[in-house]
Amino acid sequence: MSEQHPTSPHRRPFMAGVTEPKLHHPAPGAPPPPLPGPENPVLELDQEECWDLLIGTMLGRLAVSVRDRPELYPVNFLAHDRRLLIRTAQGTKLAAATVNSSVALEADGRSLHSLWSVVVKGTARILQTQAELAAAEALPLHPWTATTKTTYVEIVPTGIRGRRIALAEGFRLER
Amino acid sequence: MSEQHPTSPHRRPFMAGVTEPKLHHPAPGAPPPPLPGPENPVLELDQEECWDLLIGTMLGRLAVSVRDRPELYPVNFLAHDRRLLIRTAQGTKLAAATVNSSVALEADGRSLHSLWSVVVKGTARILQTQAELAAAEALPLHPWTATTKTTYVEIVPTGIRGRRIALAEGFRLER
Repeated sequence: MSEQHPTSPHRRPFMAGVTEPKLHHPAPGAPPPPLPGPENPVLELDQEECWDLLIGTMLGRLAVSVRDRPELYPVNFLAHDRRLLIRTAQGTKLAAATVNSSVALEADGRSLHSLWSVVVKGTARILQTQAELAAAEALPLHPWTATTKTTYVEIVPTGIRGRRIALAEGFRLER
Repeated sequence: MSEQHPTSPHRRPFMAGVTEPKLHHPAPGAPPPPLPGPENPVLELDQEECWDLLIGTMLGRLAVSVRDRPELYPVNFLAHDRRLLIRTAQGTKLAAATVNSSVALEADGRSLHSLWSVVVKGTARILQTQAELAAAEALPLHPWTATTKTTYVEIVPTGIRGRRIALAEGFRLER
């Protein structure tokens, strides 16, 4: 688990960062990222790659610990300025569980021959001030369901880890 | 969270159940399952539907609590006889964390206009006896990577909950 650099320019509050999420673009002419293969089936991803993958993904699973037992929820999230923003309904178990709490969020994706997975660990808090809420509203985190979702939870990461895993020959993720 | 029925015929050890996983087939002429929509965007799934979805899925995320902090791992699993079987590498953090421990496993899937998510809570243990291991080896839980994976973790559920969620109009899960 890598720790975020303490002097990262990304440690700004959401209200200071009302911009579209940006992908990290490698320098022109840079070699393409290595792919895992039979000889080296698990490839650790660096932080830039992890964030790029999170920025391109909206479905994650949030784990919290309640009295030393895990709870797990699917969430839609936005990766932005090296933080995560989740939109949830007021008064839900999720909202209650994430108050000042250690959380882990996983997102993954697949291609024909490989799978990636990124896990962020961090601390969650519910956005409270009008300024924070206005900044969150301005971000492109759209509700994914028709249900009313008016609580924003922000996750400040303490660590991020990602892997790309080569799938075994002939393996299919669905039957 | 629904509890498994205490007299369920599925409460057999793995070694007694070396058969292919079977989908629950509704009676001929039965109405198709209702779909969520704008008026009722979140549909609770019954246990049969939850197990059918898990049987058709091989990628899940396992949450465990370690000193009251969540850990989260992508896993490939097999739903079989109302239990879950996970194959993992010996000596991993995952294997250590799941010993006699409360766990939650989530799997999800999507169609164009909706998303389903099933969360199983239960107790994990590493299969130990030769008979259990032979039974597990006979099940169609193939390793998904070329890495050596020789530890089997069985999850006996204490509860299962699933939902189908209508996606908001125009919502895309990936950018």
